[in-house]
Amino acid sequence: MKAGCYQFDPAFGEKEENLNRVASALKNADLNLLVLPEFFATGYQFRSKDEVAELSESVKSGQTTEFLCGMSREKGIYIVAGLPERDGDKFYNSAILTGPDGLMGVYRKTHLYFEEKLYFSPGDTGFKVWDTEIGRIGIMICFDWFFPEAMRCLALNGAEIVAHPSNLVLPHCPGAMPLRCLENRVYAITANRIGTEDRTEGKPLKFIGQSLIVSPRGEVLANAPAEEETLLIAELDLKSARDKTLNPLNDIFKDRMPEAYEAILKKER
Amino acid sequence: MKAGCYQFDPAFGEKEENLNRVASALKNADLNLLVLPEFFATGYQFRSKDEVAELSESVKSGQTTEFLCGMSREKGIYIVAGLPERDGDKFYNSAILTGPDGLMGVYRKTHLYFEEKLYFSPGDTGFKVWDTEIGRIGIMICFDWFFPEAMRCLALNGAEIVAHPSNLVLPHCPGAMPLRCLENRVYAITANRIGTEDRTEGKPLKFIGQSLIVSPRGEVLANAPAEEETLLIAELDLKSARDKTLNPLNDIFKDRMPEAYEAILKKER
Repeated sequence: MKAGCYQFDPAFGEKEENLNRVASALKNADLNLLVLPEFFATGYQFRSKDEVAELSESVKSGQTTEFLCGMSREKGIYIVAGLPERDGDKFYNSAILTGPDGLMGVYRKTHLYFEEKLYFSPGDTGFKVWDTEIGRIGIMICFDWFFPEAMRCLALNGAEIVAHPSNLVLPHCPGAMPLRCLENRVYAITANRIGTEDRTEGKPLKFIGQSLIVSPRGEVLANAPAEEETLLIAELDLKSARDKTLNPLNDIFKDRMPEAYEAILKKER
Repeated sequence: MKAGCYQFDPAFGEKEENLNRVASALKNADLNLLVLPEFFATGYQFRSKDEVAELSESVKSGQTTEFLCGMSREKGIYIVAGLPERDGDKFYNSAILTGPDGLMGVYRKTHLYFEEKLYFSPGDTGFKVWDTEIGRIGIMICFDWFFPEAMRCLALNGAEIVAHPSNLVLPHCPGAMPLRCLENRVYAITANRIGTEDRTEGKPLKFIGQSLIVSPRGEVLANAPAEEETLLIAELDLKSARDKTLNPLNDIFKDRMPEAYEAILKKER
């Protein structure tokens, strides 16, 4: 099965334009799963709650969901893509999964980065995994990668592929994803964006590109440059994500010793 | 404060010789904390439970503990070192911490690697941290590194320095320790061994050396070659291990969301 991601430079607030760019990129693409960046249709650097309110959507019926469901149906593919979600008077940094039959679900980002905390609520969905025709897909968003618990929970919940919509500005993630995949024996697709947003004086954000697709053995199967628009595609063999054995005596999941891990559930104050 | 590790090629079964080599290496060394490899005084590749029984010791009163307590007292330093432990009719892959005032405690390896499972019981101590004059020291042994829960639990339990006695044969650990340190904001000292043991026909073990000391920012402060005996030393500033802030709005410990991590305590069957 073929999976990919589209790294590009979304224009802030230009939803129509950004959706059209995704449609163009997909026109001749041959793949089963596409991952798009965090906030791929809106841009990232919100300056006020009003802006968030203006650009957020209901994931059930908004323009972005309709567009993604349309693309999924038309091309017969699964798509994971990030968008600002409105639910009543709350906003979430979310990602949805769409398939040939429509919307399959939403993940709300658990670990909010920096000024996202001013505008969004922390996710309350937990680390969900969806069983699809092409494999078991889990979602995490951008900064979630920093917390080893995120991909661990997705893998323990059965994910074979971790779709990872991102707007990375720190340098560490591309170098870290091989270990995240190795320690969990899953595929990961980090769909990052490129470009710079400079909407708040003196605090420009430069996104680092370098989207990548990594195998359960920690091999980088495909990676994009730091500053170029790229449609990245790799062939995945999900059998290798189901096999957690390291040698005849070690299985990295069966060898886990949860009784020794209680500190993980401690909350810092 | 100065911490280091001694990478060498222990001779199997030659306890006296191995202890003498450590004593020589330490003779003119100037440091506050020394980490020695897993099974540093006995060698690694046991062929039978009888061999394990012969070379194992009580950690309270064995020859190795006495030697390490003596070195700690004489030099006024803390030492973390791995040894096969006998406790009644059970054997553990353990590491002890000694200080100027004697034995401070023992950690028993939680995640056993490969044929260790034939001879040793999984550790039952959990991920302990000792408060010393030079800082809070946690211990994990070799393959424990592969499980992100190990260093996470040590860090959550207050470790500022993770002492990591090792006999690594797989290639991944040296490249992975920077992320382990970054994600937990702790120092780590991986004391690996060098050389090859070929005591079971057709299954030689080549140890990969490359011991390393990593900072809480994921910088490699010092690292050893793959095949040379090395006394590695680095200056540590433990303040940087106490600071978990990433920016004015993110603290990587306070940002953890344990309510979303329940899958971590699930046991695979």
